[in-house]
This record gives sequence, C-alpha cells and structure tokens, in this order.
Amino acid sequence: MQDILDASPASDWRTLDPARTLYLQLPTGRVVIELAPDFALEHVANIATLAKEGYWDGLFVIRSQDNYVAQWGDPEEDEAKKKKIGTAKPHLPAEFERDAKGVPFVKLPDVDGWAPEVGFSGGFPAARDPKAGKAWLTHCYGMVGAGRDVAADSSDGTSLYAVTGQSPRMLDRNITLVGRVVQGIELLSVLPRGTGPLGFYEKPEQYVPIVSAKLASQVPEAERTQLQLLRTDSKTFETVVESRRNRRDEWYKRPAGHIDLCNVPLPVRAPK
Amino acid sequence: MQDILDASPASDWRTLDPARTLYLQLPTGRVVIELAPDFALEHVANIATLAKEGYWDGLFVIRSQDNYVAQWGDPEEDEAKKKKIGTAKPHLPAEFERDAKGVPFVKLPDVDGWAPEVGFSGGFPAARDPKAGKAWLTHCYGMVGAGRDVAADSSDGTSLYAVTGQSPRMLDRNITLVGRVVQGIELLSVLPRGTGPLGFYEKPEQYVPIVSAKLASQVPEAERTQLQLLRTDSKTFETVVESRRNRRDEWYKRPAGHIDLCNVPLPVRAPK
Repeated sequence: MQDILDASPASDWRTLDPARTLYLQLPTGRVVIELAPDFALEHVANIATLAKEGYWDGLFVIRSQDNYVAQWGDPEEDEAKKKKIGTAKPHLPAEFERDAKGVPFVKLPDVDGWAPEVGFSGGFPAARDPKAGKAWLTHCYGMVGAGRDVAADSSDGTSLYAVTGQSPRMLDRNITLVGRVVQGIELLSVLPRGTGPLGFYEKPEQYVPIVSAKLASQVPEAERTQLQLLRTDSKTFETVVESRRNRRDEWYKRPAGHIDLCNVPLPVRAPK
Repeated sequence: MQDILDASPASDWRTLDPARTLYLQLPTGRVVIELAPDFALEHVANIATLAKEGYWDGLFVIRSQDNYVAQWGDPEEDEAKKKKIGTAKPHLPAEFERDAKGVPFVKLPDVDGWAPEVGFSGGFPAARDPKAGKAWLTHCYGMVGAGRDVAADSSDGTSLYAVTGQSPRMLDRNITLVGRVVQGIELLSVLPRGTGPLGFYEKPEQYVPIVSAKLASQVPEAERTQLQLLRTDSKTFETVVESRRNRRDEWYKRPAGHIDLCNVPLPVRAPK
C-alpha cells in the first residue's frame, strides 16, 4: 500500500477543516476527530458550541466496553447536578439518515448485508438506499456517535462514543453518527475495560480525565495536528481498495476477491 | 439476551475439554483459549506439546497492533538463539481449510461477502464452500491463529496471535486458525500498541511477560476456570442469533434484519 500512496499526486489528499475538527485531549495524548456536518448538521453545530465553551474540559471517559465502544461525557446521573451546557441546544433532532440527493458517494462493488449500497462520502464510510433515497454514515472502527436514551431524538451531543471493536452496524440508522477519529483511536481503544454493565466504569477513580476538548480552530495554528487524508473520491483511493480486495503480495496465498466496508483503510499522513 | 439465556435448558450448554484448553497466564490474569483440533489437528497437537513442556513460560507478548491482533512468542530473531521447541514438531502442514465432510455446521441465512456460506461449527465461527467441499474457521474477534512466514507451511504453533479488532477475514484460508479466546480477550485487547512496524514492540522493556501457558489438564482441577459455553447447535443459540438479527427492544428503532458472522455473540457463563 505504501508504494501506491507514495506514487499519489498531492491533489489526491485533503486537509481537515479546523472549524470541523475536534481535539479530545486525554492525559495520554490527542484524539483527532473529523466531524461530519453533511450528515449531522445540528449535532455538529452543538458539539462545536460545547467545545468552544469548554463543556468537556474536566469531564471524563466513563465507559470502555470491550469490542464495542469508549464513551465520554458527564458521569453525573442527577439531572440537577449535571454540568450546564451553556448556549448549546438542549434538544436536537435525530440525524440517523439524510436525503441522498447531492451527497457524494463512491460506491463499493462489494456485497454488504446491512445496506443496499455501501461506500464512502467525503472521507467517511457510508451507506445508501437508492429506493428510499436515503444516505447515512456507518458504524466502522473509529466512528464517533452521540449517545442517546430511549427516545430517538434524545441525544444532544454532550455524550459521545467511538467504536473500538467489531463494527456494530446494527446501530446504523439507530443513533446519530457525528464524525470519525482520524488520529489517536489507540488512545481510546487501550483504555481499561469498565467492569460495570455495558463497560461503564464503576468507581470515579476509574474515570479517565478529559484534559480538554477543543475545535482545532480554537488552538493556535502552530499547535494544530497537521494531517493529510487521502480523498475517498480519488483514483489513488480506488487503487488502495482494489489492492486490499485482492492481495497480490507474496504472503497472501488466496486473494479474497472481496472487501467489507469496514475493512477498507482510510489513509492519513503527515504533510510532505 | 439475558432472558433467553436464563430460560435455556442445561443441555444447551457445554464445558471445555481440559486437554484442548490453553491458559495463557499474563501478569494481569488468565486468557482462556479453546483449541480447535477438528480444524487444525496438527497445530493443536503441537501447541499441546509446547504447553506441556513450558515453551511459552517466560516468553512474551511481542506485538499489539491497533484494530488488528496481539501476538506472542519468542522475540529472538537469531535462529540459533531461539528458545528450543523440545519434542514439538519443527514443521507442520498448513491447515487453512479441511474437507467439509463430517463437519457439523449451523448455517447462518445471512449473506457474507467472504465465503459462500458462514455459520458455526462446534462453537467456532466458520465458513464453507459446498462446491469445493471445504470448511474453514474464520477471523472473528478473539480467534487465535498461528503466525507464519511467507511459506504457507511455515507455522509451527510457537507464535500465536489473537484478533483484537475488526474481523480481518481476508486472512481466512491464508493462515491456520487454531482456536478462540473464550475468556480474557480484554487482557490482550488493552495492551499498549507497539510503535514498530505492524505493531511490534520496539524495545524489550515493552514486551508483556507470559507467566505461563499451560493446558487446563496440566492445572489442578480446583484451579481450572470453570465455564459453560452455549452450544452453537442449540435452539437457544438460534434464538440468540435471531434476537440480535432483529432487535426488538425499545431502544432500537430499526431492526437490521441481518447479522454478520462476526457480530454474533458466543455466550459463556460461570456454571450455575
């Protein structure tokens, strides 16, 4: 794969929009999350407000469930004592899917059991139902979503989770996905597993502190994480996918002739 | 799911064969691995010999690659200095697949992109090609395989890996799978990621020591991990799968109507 990337033109790479990039700063380092306003406009706007107002600063990762998700937010269960959300909206619509019209979509030819069509939209793994005219983001490793209660529209973006295990695609269109970890997922995936139900930490001393959660645009330019992401609508990406669908190196004895959406690598690199 | 399991008859559960169960003892606890002689007879026999002769005792987990595998064995690269394998065989055949005849197989009705048929065989996720008359184990989370070099038959069972990320099904039939972690996978999945190529640890002080690796049959009965595993050929398991294929609880707004092989839970419990 490295050879393919090394041969790619600079135009096949893009950079992150600082206003749509969230830095989740843990004691062990920075998790860089690309937000997806094209799929979750209201949630992303609220998350931007929460970040600007320092909502998560001093809160915690409160859950790490093996082969599933790590989740962060306010561990307080008493509504009256919960951290105030400032000027963020207390109520958002569910953004499980959107009108497929106008959504760029690079379709994978490979069969998928969860959706009629799967592929990539602006760097995110996504799915589409041409008959229903809907598109949505999919729960692959590293995807970030907004936790909710039983009501479909009960997420406000204060409690977020990242997928750290086998793609839980059954969650697709059941919860609002807001973005994807593009660097630092291993800071979340190695967290000790919580021993409570659903992997919640049972004791406050187990919570992992959030140093801060800021938009990249809030951080001086010199302190931003500089990344280039391979455009999923580029020829190079198409070549990467094909090279993974049919491995031609010496080690592989039987190319699969198939790739699952969530096995497709989404290359990221430091600027050249 | 708990309700379904609570209502199950005792006959739907099985126990582990101590002669085919490997305890990988890490400083943080015991990883329990069920070996799969029906699919990898020669590898399992060699692993049993290696365990009995204490091969892994004092060796290390040497690799932790995010969203992929943790691997253990001898970090020594100089063939002359490698730990001796005692009476174990230095050479084994590749056991990538086997004749499907006589192999029990509970088929999932769900489409799979990697194989003509997928399902479960004796508690293990598996696949089958009726035309070719072959069956094989599949790379789901927690599956354990035998590392190899470029030659298909270069694994001897001394270097093992467990899947700790998105199911790398492209490895199916390219490497010999020897079993599955049935308890303690989280002891491997949280290990710090190696910073070398492929997630190998770069410095000896990063290696995670293996206290011991023994067959359950080598351990006094009172010290064995007592587990019951839901039989994958039971009616209860069928009910579990269907309950996951179409979630009917209040939280899920849209049942998927599908499940991927590697999303199917394989229930394990302490004896009642």
